[in-house]
Amino acid sequence: MYFVTYLENNVEKVGLLLDNKTKVLDLARALGKNHLNNMLELITHCNKEMIDKIKGLTQDKMLYEKAVDVKDIKLYSPIPQPRRNVICLGLNYKDHAEELKNSLGKQVQTLKAPVYFGKMACDIIGDGDAIDNHPNITEAIDYEVELAVIIGKEGKNISLEEAEDYIFGYSILNDLSARDLQTKHTQWIKGKSLDTFTAMGPCIVHKSELPFPIELNLTCRVNDEVRQSSNTRNLIFDIPYIISDLSKGMTLKPGDIIATGTPAGVGMGFSPPKYLKSGDVITCSIEKIGELINKLK
Amino acid sequence: MYFVTYLENNVEKVGLLLDNKTKVLDLARALGKNHLNNMLELITHCNKEMIDKIKGLTQDKMLYEKAVDVKDIKLYSPIPQPRRNVICLGLNYKDHAEELKNSLGKQVQTLKAPVYFGKMACDIIGDGDAIDNHPNITEAIDYEVELAVIIGKEGKNISLEEAEDYIFGYSILNDLSARDLQTKHTQWIKGKSLDTFTAMGPCIVHKSELPFPIELNLTCRVNDEVRQSSNTRNLIFDIPYIISDLSKGMTLKPGDIIATGTPAGVGMGFSPPKYLKSGDVITCSIEKIGELINKLK
Repeated sequence: MYFVTYLENNVEKVGLLLDNKTKVLDLARALGKNHLNNMLELITHCNKEMIDKIKGLTQDKMLYEKAVDVKDIKLYSPIPQPRRNVICLGLNYKDHAEELKNSLGKQVQTLKAPVYFGKMACDIIGDGDAIDNHPNITEAIDYEVELAVIIGKEGKNISLEEAEDYIFGYSILNDLSARDLQTKHTQWIKGKSLDTFTAMGPCIVHKSELPFPIELNLTCRVNDEVRQSSNTRNLIFDIPYIISDLSKGMTLKPGDIIATGTPAGVGMGFSPPKYLKSGDVITCSIEKIGELINKLK
Repeated sequence: MYFVTYLENNVEKVGLLLDNKTKVLDLARALGKNHLNNMLELITHCNKEMIDKIKGLTQDKMLYEKAVDVKDIKLYSPIPQPRRNVICLGLNYKDHAEELKNSLGKQVQTLKAPVYFGKMACDIIGDGDAIDNHPNITEAIDYEVELAVIIGKEGKNISLEEAEDYIFGYSILNDLSARDLQTKHTQWIKGKSLDTFTAMGPCIVHKSELPFPIELNLTCRVNDEVRQSSNTRNLIFDIPYIISDLSKGMTLKPGDIIATGTPAGVGMGFSPPKYLKSGDVITCSIEKIGELINKLK
């Protein structure tokens, strides 16, 4: 099951991708539910019974006629307005921590716990949306492909064993940064939170589609050049550890987005740095999820 | 004008304090508006016309009879569920930056820009609510009294001169921290975001009540001992600077909460540190706003 958020007649809807992801079914209408106005509502109300019903829809070829063509609609980010900031992990692939050793110094080399930070992503952009280039504010815009974990139900002090139960699904996230601001302000939030600096999409894959633990190839291309290429099995702190550790004393909520970190190959890691330039097209891909493509204005 | 959020017959309401803050008027009923279900809606819809009407209400002594006694209701935090994380400033009073020099090291001594960080405060506790002590998760809970600025309208790239226009009002915020987690995870969000670690209240004071620039005494007592005592005029980066700098490339939204930093006297600054113990009562006071009192479980 692949879920999207899209616009039809100026109304935001939650859709289910059908027919090899070429068609979108209006999920609220198909299920006869009027409390599925957006993805957060779907995630919040999504119990086993509803998942079974939705699975049934994917197998009903009669429904293909009621679905619209993906190319006829505007896809949004699956969660355009999250309930709170995106939770991100820094330095969670060994090769990436290595490449930034010189820039970030000693604190990186002695890393013994996950580095969490937040992105003020009140508005998350989707596949195909433009990234602002923020002239006069930053001269060092960087890309980071990441696997995003979408939390499915509220939980606190979650054990490693239970962690998967709390996941709704997965998406692709491009964690854009203004490296100059990230460094200047010491803590990272400002450099990570300029408008349009969180891109997510094109869809959320329900966890039932992917074997656990998650071992997926992820890559990031800038124009035609592959800059990042790794596999989520190389995470230093893996998904159960992140969910368990984060939830110690801190309640995770349905719809929370956790960006699990990025592998080596970011612009800042090159000497001289390869920051993004106006017109660059950034393609973040994760196997079995899709491609998230955004162009810098 | 002093605004509160309170519970009446299990319904969350926005109230206006009257009669020397002893009574609460149901603001939606008094104004005949049904789109004022919570403080975020009030802030979002609060134009000059509405403010003038509300000012009229405060002068109508006939309304005192329709208002309920503050002691008969449960006050909540004025914004119990903010739209996104609270934006905080670290090290924004010189004496506080000095006291933490040894703990935080070189990055503090060379501070040239505001240090912003976020608190995952999905649920903000109010005056009188208990703070969790999180046994087995932290052994270093600390207090920080701060002036909170509440943003009144959406804006980006706001100039220093325009900054005040974007303010709705002010409140008192206790920015609680787990110092051990704050240090362990390098970036501060986890140590700042345990459940109940953001307290705000008792009210929001509309900006029209206070001359600008804001120069208010603020103190924090733990039980009977005054630990922090300063004045908001001692902010290193003042309120217009913060709003202008934060909004560079990043849209501020109505209802955003900016905690402007804390003066010297936090538990971590003492040698040995004076962290909070179960049963401690923390009283954060700011002149002309009120007192925010919370007890550690």
